[in-house]
Amino acid sequence: MQPILFNLESDHDLAQALAIEVDAEVGKLDLRNFPDGESYLRILSDCQHRSVIVLCNLHHPDDKILKLIFLTHTLKSLGASRIGLVTPYLAYMRQDKAFHPGEAVSSRPFAHLLSEQFDWLVTLDPHLHRYNSLDEIYSLKSSVVHAAPMIAAWINQHIEKPLLIGPDSESEQWVSEVAHLSKAPFQVLEKVRHGDYSVEVSVPEIEQWENHTPVLVDDIISSGKTMSETITHLHQLGLKSPTCIGVHGLFSDDDFNALAIKAKIVTCNSVPHTSNDIDISHALSQAILKWI
Amino acid sequence: MQPILFNLESDHDLAQALAIEVDAEVGKLDLRNFPDGESYLRILSDCQHRSVIVLCNLHHPDDKILKLIFLTHTLKSLGASRIGLVTPYLAYMRQDKAFHPGEAVSSRPFAHLLSEQFDWLVTLDPHLHRYNSLDEIYSLKSSVVHAAPMIAAWINQHIEKPLLIGPDSESEQWVSEVAHLSKAPFQVLEKVRHGDYSVEVSVPEIEQWENHTPVLVDDIISSGKTMSETITHLHQLGLKSPTCIGVHGLFSDDDFNALAIKAKIVTCNSVPHTSNDIDISHALSQAILKWI
Repeated sequence: MQPILFNLESDHDLAQALAIEVDAEVGKLDLRNFPDGESYLRILSDCQHRSVIVLCNLHHPDDKILKLIFLTHTLKSLGASRIGLVTPYLAYMRQDKAFHPGEAVSSRPFAHLLSEQFDWLVTLDPHLHRYNSLDEIYSLKSSVVHAAPMIAAWINQHIEKPLLIGPDSESEQWVSEVAHLSKAPFQVLEKVRHGDYSVEVSVPEIEQWENHTPVLVDDIISSGKTMSETITHLHQLGLKSPTCIGVHGLFSDDDFNALAIKAKIVTCNSVPHTSNDIDISHALSQAILKWI
Repeated sequence: MQPILFNLESDHDLAQALAIEVDAEVGKLDLRNFPDGESYLRILSDCQHRSVIVLCNLHHPDDKILKLIFLTHTLKSLGASRIGLVTPYLAYMRQDKAFHPGEAVSSRPFAHLLSEQFDWLVTLDPHLHRYNSLDEIYSLKSSVVHAAPMIAAWINQHIEKPLLIGPDSESEQWVSEVAHLSKAPFQVLEKVRHGDYSVEVSVPEIEQWENHTPVLVDDIISSGKTMSETITHLHQLGLKSPTCIGVHGLFSDDDFNALAIKAKIVTCNSVPHTSNDIDISHALSQAILKWI
């Protein structure tokens, strides 16, 4: 039977692209709020014995999670055979440690909640920092899609003589992989802190990069502060105006605008935004095909 | 050890009143949003080996549920002994049946979710219509507090010669109990529908109630449509201007204002609102004391 894909408050274009690539019917939902703020959900498509793909992009997750639970519960009651979640951005992965006593390590209960609802999960580059893999906290089966090949291809197509830059050591994993795939040189900035407010940044043998275009790569651009500071440092070092690439652009309009004055910003279409220029739909659909 | 009460995005005054009545410390939380819309939560009070009361009023529940889950998860990691939920209004109880094929029966997954988090639950008059008791869908232990005694006391204190009115047969359970406790007469309106738009309402032996003040009682006032129609019918029958009492006032400002033109509206302080005039804090605290 043909699989069916439901789009729960997520990117319409991405849903259409995925449905075409994996040959799924796009399911129909009636989703709205009662006047008192509770959610009403009705599935209008036949789901019995069918493999179900739920596209629900979990940026701004708090308001979506109950609807997601109601959807999976109803799918099961209608006899769906297997239910998978496609979330291009996987929320709460950064809350992987109590940095101060009493802090919620929200990645864990969030993982438990999703694992209860779904048989499988496909996502793009989750923020794996203190966890080595999703399996440490997720008990469902998961496929992680990497944006590095698409980013490398974009760089090769758009930037002449790129110099890839990692703003800090945490970003080294992204930058080194993209550099390897795009066959471009890369540098991870070394920061030397003088007191609380003065930071010096150095790049070894800077003169050889004068004719290159710096390309900053990070997995998440949120406040844009790290990117912004790095751009300032690159200017001070006499390098060209850079391009910033983020896998997931989670910025507010204000933060995006403040950063866009300083550099060109490009993101994957994992979180819908005007800066989207790297398409991840084909890679996601290849991962989905394994499960349906 | 002294129990501790946390107020999760709920009524400050009610939290203080409950803490005093059950002799609990008011716990300190740091709760805020990251710029990307995820929630940050930190518990700043010692919870080890302590009995915990979480006041989280679940009207407008969708945006609160993840924070609630993060709170209970963190409380458990900090060694809390037992954790109970006090929600004066229990959400999603009206979604107790698929009225059309494919509709989410959201009361069930919602009950499952809360039952996983908490050891006990205290609430005020949940909407038990097709379920006979919370135990049908909740696997935690629960105490249901009834507003009828407080409503009856309010009526006896404020209304001379009340005639209690149930707008429809669903409200009979509330009205008859309040009538019994306040020793007032009651009538449940009988509706005769003529076609789609014309409804005739009758009250037997109407002339004996001419000098009484009609008091409409229902468990939830949401859009106010039922109350509004009933008021119109009472005017047509020549009765005095009524008072409307709702256990839970879930109305929007617009809906409240439209109704307030037609009648005095009084609600319990289960959902904070300017119409609150019936205090339920003592009754809630008596129920809480059984669990801590």
